[in-house]
Amino acid sequence: MPAPILTLTTDFGLSDHYVGAMKGVILGICPNAQIVDISHQVSPYAIGEGAFTIAQVYRYFPAGTVHVGVVDPGVGSARRPIVVEAAEQLFVGPDNGVFGMILAREKHTVRLIQNRQYFREPVSHTFHGRDIFAPVAAHLAAGVAPSRIGEILADYVRPPFANPRKKDARTWEGEILKVDRFGNVVTNFRADDFPVLEELTVGDAKAQRLVHSYAEAADGELVVIGGSSGYLELSLNQGSAAEKIGCRAGGVCQVRV
Amino acid sequence: MPAPILTLTTDFGLSDHYVGAMKGVILGICPNAQIVDISHQVSPYAIGEGAFTIAQVYRYFPAGTVHVGVVDPGVGSARRPIVVEAAEQLFVGPDNGVFGMILAREKHTVRLIQNRQYFREPVSHTFHGRDIFAPVAAHLAAGVAPSRIGEILADYVRPPFANPRKKDARTWEGEILKVDRFGNVVTNFRADDFPVLEELTVGDAKAQRLVHSYAEAADGELVVIGGSSGYLELSLNQGSAAEKIGCRAGGVCQVRV
Amino acid sequence: MPAPILTLTTDFGLSDHYVGAMKGVILGICPNAQIVDISHQVSPYAIGEGAFTIAQVYRYFPAGTVHVGVVDPGVGSARRPIVVEAAEQLFVGPDNGVFGMILAREKHTVRLIQNRQYFREPVSHTFHGRDIFAPVAAHLAAGVAPSRIGEILADYVRPPFANPRKKDARTWEGEILKVDRFGNVVTNFRADDFPVLEELTVGDAKAQRLVHSYAEAADGELVVIGGSSGYLELSLNQGSAAEKIGCRAGGVCQVRV
Repeated sequence: MPAPILTLTTDFGLSDHYVGAMKGVILGICPNAQIVDISHQVSPYAIGEGAFTIAQVYRYFPAGTVHVGVVDPGVGSARRPIVVEAAEQLFVGPDNGVFGMILAREKHTVRLIQNRQYFREPVSHTFHGRDIFAPVAAHLAAGVAPSRIGEILADYVRPPFANPRKKDARTWEGEILKVDRFGNVVTNFRADDFPVLEELTVGDAKAQRLVHSYAEAADGELVVIGGSSGYLELSLNQGSAAEKIGCRAGGVCQVRV
Repeated sequence: MPAPILTLTTDFGLSDHYVGAMKGVILGICPNAQIVDISHQVSPYAIGEGAFTIAQVYRYFPAGTVHVGVVDPGVGSARRPIVVEAAEQLFVGPDNGVFGMILAREKHTVRLIQNRQYFREPVSHTFHGRDIFAPVAAHLAAGVAPSRIGEILADYVRPPFANPRKKDARTWEGEILKVDRFGNVVTNFRADDFPVLEELTVGDAKAQRLVHSYAEAADGELVVIGGSSGYLELSLNQGSAAEKIGCRAGGVCQVRV
Repeated sequence: MPAPILTLTTDFGLSDHYVGAMKGVILGICPNAQIVDISHQVSPYAIGEGAFTIAQVYRYFPAGTVHVGVVDPGVGSARRPIVVEAAEQLFVGPDNGVFGMILAREKHTVRLIQNRQYFREPVSHTFHGRDIFAPVAAHLAAGVAPSRIGEILADYVRPPFANPRKKDARTWEGEILKVDRFGNVVTNFRADDFPVLEELTVGDAKAQRLVHSYAEAADGELVVIGGSSGYLELSLNQGSAAEKIGCRAGGVCQVRV
């Protein structure tokens, strides 16, 4: 039997002890877990960025994987802890939209995390990652059925998922989902929806040429690329498009077809 | 049999090859080890910060876990390598106080690392993490008894552990142990010792209200919270208290009860 | 049977989802892999820095380890994907010099990655780490013979490996290979080739004293040390030599004997 896989996506950073404490709790419950760090560098409190990160990886993991997502500004408040069953995988975290892109895409069941038998006691008010999400995820990875965690929840948070809006016959307005380490500007225009286009603009910056790989771009040329995430990206060859344009996640962009 | 767990806490950072080399050595000796990175972002040479980090995680790990702590400005000098047995776990690193908070809290036995049979040869003068601590820890994780590593040591380093000092009937002076990624200011006042208080101050900044969760704080309000580490923290709701106050680890703080 | 070991060295950073996606693909193919992150903080597109990092760690890993190296500015262009067999280990990545230091040191066989049966389909033009290198490496780790991946390649890239040049009877000119987190300046002068020396210079900075450990250096004294990597380093005791000197990787240095 292969080891159960458990992934972690948080805004805890890598300097503090928080991620290490979660891993200790997980291994105490599920000693043979394959723990995979997706990212702990989600910007603090940036639920949308966490949602994008998790949504970009889950389909590359085998069925049965348990994903923990903790970007949780409301920890200790009335916001609820949930388990989402979707795409033959499980997602454990706060009910604040951090799994919003998965809820928008996949058939799913959402359960409230209720059964304190699977918590770490005493439960702190400030670190549910360690005291609720890690132990519940570890029990799920070890084989506990989601139905034992809690009841099905109907009124969970469904964040307005940022889809492009049609402005006129030839123009769509969208949003920058992410700027990656290389400075690629990832938009929310699905590449499949725009096999051809006349122009992609962010502020004053424009790109007309749709290329297949970064290496096709001339030196300093801003190009459009159907990126590995499935979305249109604005890119430079070996340079930062985001820096050249001066933009960041959440900003507005437009496509003219 | 579950895989032996071996954790790593260092100031090596994540850009260099140092941590990777240690892991190679470990896996050559104990191929099925569950290696857990606690943090490699301890500030360079900051023994106290390393001590805090390790002390914050060990109790969440199962009995038998081997913790390696390498913050080692004196590598290659006369400072000694040690193994600490405490809390049914093992701690491997330099005798410079990096396990000081555990020595202050737990019953313990300290052994000198002497038996070169468990070293990687040739031993360098600058990287005992790779040549002494990693291989000794891997042998311990693989089942070698601590008594085979070396003799019991009586005169190991016990750093002055920063406990708050009473200044007058109502005032205690303490120290900032850590500023975390979110800007929470972790003091060395144990939350259990101060169930009520009148004021916590750092420089000119004051907080009177003791809350249970970040979300209880009003916008921009500096609050006191009994943090997940067991210490009082100064915090803002979704903002950096440390930045607002302008303070850092090692600074002075006061509680008035 | 111990779990197969698979290491990752990339310039993908730790904020994005790219490394997580690669790990998902790997675990889908080789569920019991021991995945070891060497570094994902190689400077973007810095093939030489990636080559140095991989070359510094492979010998600490057991025979049979599979190393993935992805610093790949030419992804999607005509540059070829390769598998290198050397030192009883395997290296998977682009044919752009990222394994150059291993090719310069070890007997090796280089194969073209051809057999699409081991790819993840559809193969993107921008993320061969996920679609080619991760799955091929995982299949190799799971036991697929390199000969099944593709044919032997004769005309692979052999980057000019930066060896010191003799300038006159007593002077050698070399290059700075790396500045590490502590500010140690790692040169390409092999420590074994210079058991004694009169002076090591970088720009206006000079160091005459060859020491064995950082702790031997006086406060603020720039010293030469035969570092853990096997090369001469310029170092300060508990300070950054690189900052004091004002130098970085790629810069020139000189030894006078």
